[in-house]
Amino acid sequence: MYDIIIVGAGPAGLTAAIYALRGNKKVLVLESKTYGGQIVNASKIENYPGIQEISGFDYATALYNQVTSLGGEIKFEEVTKIEKDKSVITTSNTYQAKSVIIATGAENKRLGVPKEQEFVGKGVSYCATCDGNFYRNKTVAVVGGGNTALEDAIYLSNIAEKVYLIHRRDSFRGEDAYVEELKNKDNVEFILNSNVVGLNGENLLESIEVETEGKKNTLNVNGLFIAVGQKPNNDRFSNVVELDNGYIASTDGVHTSTTGIYVAGDTRVKDLRQLTTAVSDGAIAATTAMKEMK
Amino acid sequence: MYDIIIVGAGPAGLTAAIYALRGNKKVLVLESKTYGGQIVNASKIENYPGIQEISGFDYATALYNQVTSLGGEIKFEEVTKIEKDKSVITTSNTYQAKSVIIATGAENKRLGVPKEQEFVGKGVSYCATCDGNFYRNKTVAVVGGGNTALEDAIYLSNIAEKVYLIHRRDSFRGEDAYVEELKNKDNVEFILNSNVVGLNGENLLESIEVETEGKKNTLNVNGLFIAVGQKPNNDRFSNVVELDNGYIASTDGVHTSTTGIYVAGDTRVKDLRQLTTAVSDGAIAATTAMKEMK
Repeated sequence: MYDIIIVGAGPAGLTAAIYALRGNKKVLVLESKTYGGQIVNASKIENYPGIQEISGFDYATALYNQVTSLGGEIKFEEVTKIEKDKSVITTSNTYQAKSVIIATGAENKRLGVPKEQEFVGKGVSYCATCDGNFYRNKTVAVVGGGNTALEDAIYLSNIAEKVYLIHRRDSFRGEDAYVEELKNKDNVEFILNSNVVGLNGENLLESIEVETEGKKNTLNVNGLFIAVGQKPNNDRFSNVVELDNGYIASTDGVHTSTTGIYVAGDTRVKDLRQLTTAVSDGAIAATTAMKEMK
Repeated sequence: MYDIIIVGAGPAGLTAAIYALRGNKKVLVLESKTYGGQIVNASKIENYPGIQEISGFDYATALYNQVTSLGGEIKFEEVTKIEKDKSVITTSNTYQAKSVIIATGAENKRLGVPKEQEFVGKGVSYCATCDGNFYRNKTVAVVGGGNTALEDAIYLSNIAEKVYLIHRRDSFRGEDAYVEELKNKDNVEFILNSNVVGLNGENLLESIEVETEGKKNTLNVNGLFIAVGQKPNNDRFSNVVELDNGYIASTDGVHTSTTGIYVAGDTRVKDLRQLTTAVSDGAIAATTAMKEMK
C-alpha cells in the first residue's frame, strides 16, 4: 500500500514526489515513457528562476535524481485506469494507494509538416513564452487560429522585428479583441487561407513554404511557432475525474471530482503552462494530499 | 514611463521581472531591503525542483543575476504608495508605469525569545514544509495555536520521532479536526498554557525552556518550529488593493481590485507559501500583465 501514487514523471509529478517524500510518505511514481515530460525537448531553458541556463534534458535529469536521492520509487509502466478506491492499474500491475495525483501532462499537437521534428529547437517551437526571447529583432511566423496563436503573435510582435500569422481559414477561432490588436500592429502580417507545407534550412530554420489557395510561396523566417493546440491523454481517467476539453477539471486547481484524487501540471485546465506553474502545481498537490490524508 | 513596475525583489518579484523582460517590456523592480526576500535566511534549500541543494543566499543571488543579465533595472528604494493611475511613490522618487505588480512578501512573526535570531537555521525554523525533512527521527517542538501550528505538528509527526505542541492558551484557535487528529498520534504531546522562554545549545539548538503556569522546565529538542503567524506589510497599498487580514485579496490569485495592479507571492491570500508557488505567481502575474497591456 502506497500513501501516494503519482501518475506522470514530468516536472509536476516529480515535484509532487519531492514534497511527498520529504513529508515521509510512501510514494510511487508511474511513467509510461521517459522522465521529464515535454521539457526534455527544450534545448535551452532560460526562464526557470534560479538557473541561468540549462537544457531540458539536464533539468529533467536533475529533478529525477532529486527524487531518487530521497528514496523515491519510479516505475516505467503505463497507467491504463484509476479506480475510485485509489487502485492504479498499469499494463502489467495493480497498485493500491491512499491518494493519487494525476500529472500526465499534455502533448503539443504537431503541424504534420515534413522535417518538423528535425527543426524543433532549431527554429521550430511550440511555446512563444518559452522561446520568444531567442528571436529578438528576427522574423518569425505563428501558425494557428485560436487564442493561443493570437496571444503568441501579440507576444512575439513585442520581441521580433516581423511576425507573420498564418491560418488555414479566412477568419480566426480566437477572440476578436486579439485580432483587432494584431491588425493595429505595424510589424504583424496576416496570411490567411494558407498552410505551411515545407521547412527549409541547412541546420537552423531559414524559410518556410506556404501554400495559399493552390499557390506556393517561400517565406524567409528564423522561427516558426506552431500553436495548433495541445492534446492531453485523460480519456482513460474519465471514470474518476471530470474532463473539460480533454483536460482535467478542478474546483481550485488541485481537487478533481473524486476525493483523494488530485491533479497537477499541464494536464489540468489552466491558463499558463510553464515549468514554474508545473512545479507549483506539484508542490500544492502533494501538500494538499498529505494534509487531507487520514 | 515603465511598462511594468514590480514592487519587491523576492522570488515572486524577480521571476515576474524575468518574464516581463523576456517579453521585451521596460521593467523597474523596487526593493526596500535586500534582494531575495525571506529566502535569503534559509541556510539550505532542498525542495526546489531541479536544484539538489543550495543556500537561500546563493539562490537569491542567482535569481538577481538572471534579472540583471536580461537588462533588468533594480532600485533599492522603499515604496510608500501606489496610485490608481499606476504611479509608484518611493521615499525619494515617483515613477510611472502602465502596470504594477505587488510582490512585497510577508515576514514571519518572531516569538520574541532571546537568541531566536541566532538559532535560525540551527534548530529554529518558521516553515515545517521547508525544513521538516532535516529532523527525521529527531525531537521537535511546534509553538502556536492556529491552523498553521496544527498542520505543522501533523506534518512533523510523520517525520520526527517526537513532536511537542506548545501553546500559551488552554485551547487552540485552529480547527478541531486537526486537534483531534493530533490527539490520536502517539508521538505528539500537547503542552498547554505554556510559553517558550529560552533557547539553549552550543552551536545547534539542544533544548528549550518552557514556562507553564509560573514553573520552568527544560525540554530537549533538536528543532523548534515557530508558527505564530506572518505579517505582510500592505497597509500602505490599501487605497488601491483590497486587503484580507493584511494580505492582498485577489479574484483569481493575480488580479487585485484595481485594473492594471497585480499581486504575486507570499503577500497575497494563498494556502501554500513556498519557492515553487512564489515563482509560479511571478510568472503568472507578468504574463497576465503583458496580455492585458494595451
